[in-house]
Amino acid sequence: MSLIVNELEESMIKEAPIGVFDSGVGGLTVAREIMSQMPNERIVYFGDTARVPYGSKSQNTIIRYARQIIRFLKTKQVKAIVIACNTASAYALDTVEAELDIPIIGVVKPGAKVAAETTRNGKIGVIGTEGTINSGMYSEFLYLRNSELTVVGKACPLFVPLVEENWIKDSVTVEVAKRYLSELKESEIDTLILGCTHYPLIRSTVRQVIGDGVTLVNPAYETALELKELLEKKKLINTKPQKNDGSGYEFYVSDAADKFKQFANSILPYDIATTKLINIEDF
Amino acid sequence: MSLIVNELEESMIKEAPIGVFDSGVGGLTVAREIMSQMPNERIVYFGDTARVPYGSKSQNTIIRYARQIIRFLKTKQVKAIVIACNTASAYALDTVEAELDIPIIGVVKPGAKVAAETTRNGKIGVIGTEGTINSGMYSEFLYLRNSELTVVGKACPLFVPLVEENWIKDSVTVEVAKRYLSELKESEIDTLILGCTHYPLIRSTVRQVIGDGVTLVNPAYETALELKELLEKKKLINTKPQKNDGSGYEFYVSDAADKFKQFANSILPYDIATTKLINIEDF
Repeated sequence: MSLIVNELEESMIKEAPIGVFDSGVGGLTVAREIMSQMPNERIVYFGDTARVPYGSKSQNTIIRYARQIIRFLKTKQVKAIVIACNTASAYALDTVEAELDIPIIGVVKPGAKVAAETTRNGKIGVIGTEGTINSGMYSEFLYLRNSELTVVGKACPLFVPLVEENWIKDSVTVEVAKRYLSELKESEIDTLILGCTHYPLIRSTVRQVIGDGVTLVNPAYETALELKELLEKKKLINTKPQKNDGSGYEFYVSDAADKFKQFANSILPYDIATTKLINIEDF
Repeated sequence: MSLIVNELEESMIKEAPIGVFDSGVGGLTVAREIMSQMPNERIVYFGDTARVPYGSKSQNTIIRYARQIIRFLKTKQVKAIVIACNTASAYALDTVEAELDIPIIGVVKPGAKVAAETTRNGKIGVIGTEGTINSGMYSEFLYLRNSELTVVGKACPLFVPLVEENWIKDSVTVEVAKRYLSELKESEIDTLILGCTHYPLIRSTVRQVIGDGVTLVNPAYETALELKELLEKKKLINTKPQKNDGSGYEFYVSDAADKFKQFANSILPYDIATTKLINIEDF
């Protein structure tokens, strides 16, 4: 970018969209938070539905995928990027951040930061996919902030398919949550990180089972908040209101566009008109 | 193969292993049936755990994967190959069969064949993953055998994660099965194909919910039976008994070998000593 930027260029940059990506549909909870907290901002979302799940793949593979997706998002002139995927945030953020000339944030650090600040008894629970829990990605960031913390992780592999079945408030989901969360209750955690982008959608069931004494940390919410602060600091906030019809949001996937659209329409405030299929391997 | 094969060479070929592959652990139910029906046969199993699931991927991608896996299995001098994966059977079998100089079979045709022969009222149910059901792969083979059949498909996406959680005989699984199977019960099917290689492991729950009036067709069982007939026809049956300690079975995966081993040991009659990790993209 040239050092001399005139007003026209400046407003064009401010009106540019934010790129958001995930391995699939889960990151839509992060997009939803951005829509809610920053209604002026346009979004280009990419869901890597052909290569989901990321949790079982190696770090090198995830970095290669993230680079491809960032190259694609840059063709859409995004002004900032959000990695709305736990695995890609943990594995690729530092590498791609160093290579990039626009701001980029992930979901793991904002969630871990708030949890570390929130806990009073120092006992934090983390729920997520097997990949997220086994990698210890949240524990790592939590211990970096405070090495005295006790972190209890619990993989909840049935939560994602339950959400994707749309059995959100459902006796089966409550029963599954009871089993998954019983260990965490016994550990006397006072703070619980919803460490998977699908989980905000079953937040009320988790709340019901874990009880009111535990603070739930939603990394999707915290990430949107941190993004807002970052855009303000960089003078990149879009001050021009956009049409209130969802036309400022574009969705791209690498496979199964119809299924994606259906899920997106069930959770977003606007109906998606189209979801475009792209070949991400071309980028 | 030379037309003149001497006795030594012939017995070497007969004693060669059978290659079995799947996108992950599900195909182990097919391997288990082969172990049970043909205890003399050695097996080389490959689970493509790095690229699972196959159901959401395009036909071209699945054919490329199948070719890589077959090249790998041929380095192990297999005498025949079983595609123990519904998606790969439907998408890749015809293509790779035409390219191959050893016998190869999949799981879809044997299951569909038996179901078409079994039904009395012509109403057949199929349960499977979303990929399997949406592709209509079983319907296609069933209609080819008898265009008068009524085929009712039902995707049961929670069954695989329930099996992988080992919640096999469990109140949650029974409740989930009741919801999934209610439509099929209303359709008055008399035959139900367990169209996913994981499902034989929850066969008793499916039986309990669907009732005794419905014949369950297990493609894993039918495939092992068809393989036996094929090997007999081609004079490839191994008549030499092998040690009764599982040493004739080798397991390879493309990722997460420990998790694979744990699951395999929970369902196979022998404990797996080691699971070897290979880079399938090298083949």
